[in-house]
Amino acid sequence: MLVNRRRILVEFGDCDPAHIVFFANYFRWFDDCTTALFLAAGLPIRELFPSHKVLGIPVVEATAQFLAPATHGDELLVESTVAEIRKSSFVITHKFFHGKVRLLEGRETRVWAAAHPTEPNRMKALPLPKEVVERLSGTHKKAGKKSARTRR
Amino acid sequence: MLVNRRRILVEFGDCDPAHIVFFANYFRWFDDCTTALFLAAGLPIRELFPSHKVLGIPVVEATAQFLAPATHGDELLVESTVAEIRKSSFVITHKFFHGKVRLLEGRETRVWAAAHPTEPNRMKALPLPKEVVERLSGTHKKAGKKSARTRR
Amino acid sequence: MLVNRRRILVEFGDCDPAHIVFFANYFRWFDDCTTALFLAAGLPIRELFPSHKVLGIPVVEATAQFLAPATHGDELLVESTVAEIRKSSFVITHKFFHGKVRLLEGRETRVWAAAHPTEPNRMKALPLPKEVVERLSGTHKKAGKKSARTRR
Amino acid sequence: MLVNRRRILVEFGDCDPAHIVFFANYFRWFDDCTTALFLAAGLPIRELFPSHKVLGIPVVEATAQFLAPATHGDELLVESTVAEIRKSSFVITHKFFHGKVRLLEGRETRVWAAAHPTEPNRMKALPLPKEVVERLSGTHKKAGKKSARTRR
Repeated sequence: MLVNRRRILVEFGDCDPAHIVFFANYFRWFDDCTTALFLAAGLPIRELFPSHKVLGIPVVEATAQFLAPATHGDELLVESTVAEIRKSSFVITHKFFHGKVRLLEGRETRVWAAAHPTEPNRMKALPLPKEVVERLSGTHKKAGKKSARTRR
Repeated sequence: MLVNRRRILVEFGDCDPAHIVFFANYFRWFDDCTTALFLAAGLPIRELFPSHKVLGIPVVEATAQFLAPATHGDELLVESTVAEIRKSSFVITHKFFHGKVRLLEGRETRVWAAAHPTEPNRMKALPLPKEVVERLSGTHKKAGKKSARTRR
Repeated sequence: MLVNRRRILVEFGDCDPAHIVFFANYFRWFDDCTTALFLAAGLPIRELFPSHKVLGIPVVEATAQFLAPATHGDELLVESTVAEIRKSSFVITHKFFHGKVRLLEGRETRVWAAAHPTEPNRMKALPLPKEVVERLSGTHKKAGKKSARTRR
Repeated sequence: MLVNRRRILVEFGDCDPAHIVFFANYFRWFDDCTTALFLAAGLPIRELFPSHKVLGIPVVEATAQFLAPATHGDELLVESTVAEIRKSSFVITHKFFHGKVRLLEGRETRVWAAAHPTEPNRMKALPLPKEVVERLSGTHKKAGKKSARTRR
């Protein structure tokens, strides 16, 4: 399965009066890291969503365990992994580190969602396109690349 | 156990390009609703934390199931409950509604935390003060009130 | 010209490690208060923008003077006014108070903007519709109301 | 005067339903870029503020002109400059670019502020320390560096 690493610099404005990252910001970073994971898989979301006529990949479940706090000036490393792919949803896990210290373990389930055909302000989950499944699972092969690999 | 209700108006800036609330904002609202729950319990956090020499009540675990989306202009009702009180931590649940539609069910575990005595940038969980336990569990009685109740 | 008042409760997560509102949040509140001003004028933006086929009322200039800080638990009062209406733009001023203390004076210029006809990721300012001008300037009269007033 | 450049990747969650950066986020980035400018000047704020016993450098005036919108996936370049240094305040300007397109020109005035000696929830501006003035104005010389430069 696909893994991606991304660095995050904790800013002053990310922190609360307890001088630690306000916890909701980690979920904002979940989203940024999932975007980065998709990009690493060859799936830039800005083009991906309109080209497939979907609204996006909304989160249907998110969970996080906060193991240690971080503060501004800390440079974090986030390791994001595609943990599971289902018919119309998938699971991403995120692990946040500051140096060797593990700060957070999180998990989000997202769906491939379009506007609901009849009800406004609702969404409808659709089956994940084959290309998205292949790219997220790391089994995607480009035509050119495939033959190149076959030759070796 | 204590329950509190709070209204939230979803603003334009709370929503993302999919025209729904950006999911991390719900966790921001978890915090606001926990503050409101504490206030309803007679525990205003601005005075509570310095008077007990703690940094606050950081979240050590948070989870949410997103059942239906909301968009700007929606007025949400959040029902927050003290679900469990342990020695130095407690669990709050939040249920978000838009009219009769249940939008979200969430749960957060928080600790009563002071600055770590020896290591900077770390926190240390402390036993919950008796008054906080009583107020969160709804068993707190003021001296005056108690006698008043006894009289009836 | 139209004036609207709105209350804002400063939350823990709105504040930074200096224990005061992180200044960027005031600009978020500018947006919320402009939405409330539009609503008070009979212009709910969720219906207004799609019905006029515009993207919204993006800010082209914003400025604020921060006169005194606020912290969590403070309840602020914001007074928002339509200060000027031009052909395709308008100026809103916001004054923030905490009790009798004036905290902030701000000003934003916004345009009535649609998607650019030929260039993606750009916008195009359009003339403000007559109804919007009338409602923001407080000169709008409903057919029924007008006659009711004339009668008095 | 000191100049610093910093890249910002616009994320999905930074954008609003009009598919452009929600304008308040630029002011969040002002803060991040000022922190980066201070770091480039040899003034890491996490150590700087406590070592000088100040609360920070709160903004007393901020202004921005929004010239063109940006959306998620855009990588912005921000050029931040110390434009003016006064007794207890200073002015920073920020210019945001996307490729060759200028997106924003902004300006913020900040003060060097400590807790107010007698009134809680207030701040007091103090004269900027000599080292901070020298570093922000680019005239600071380290003992070792100075002689090295003199030798040339």
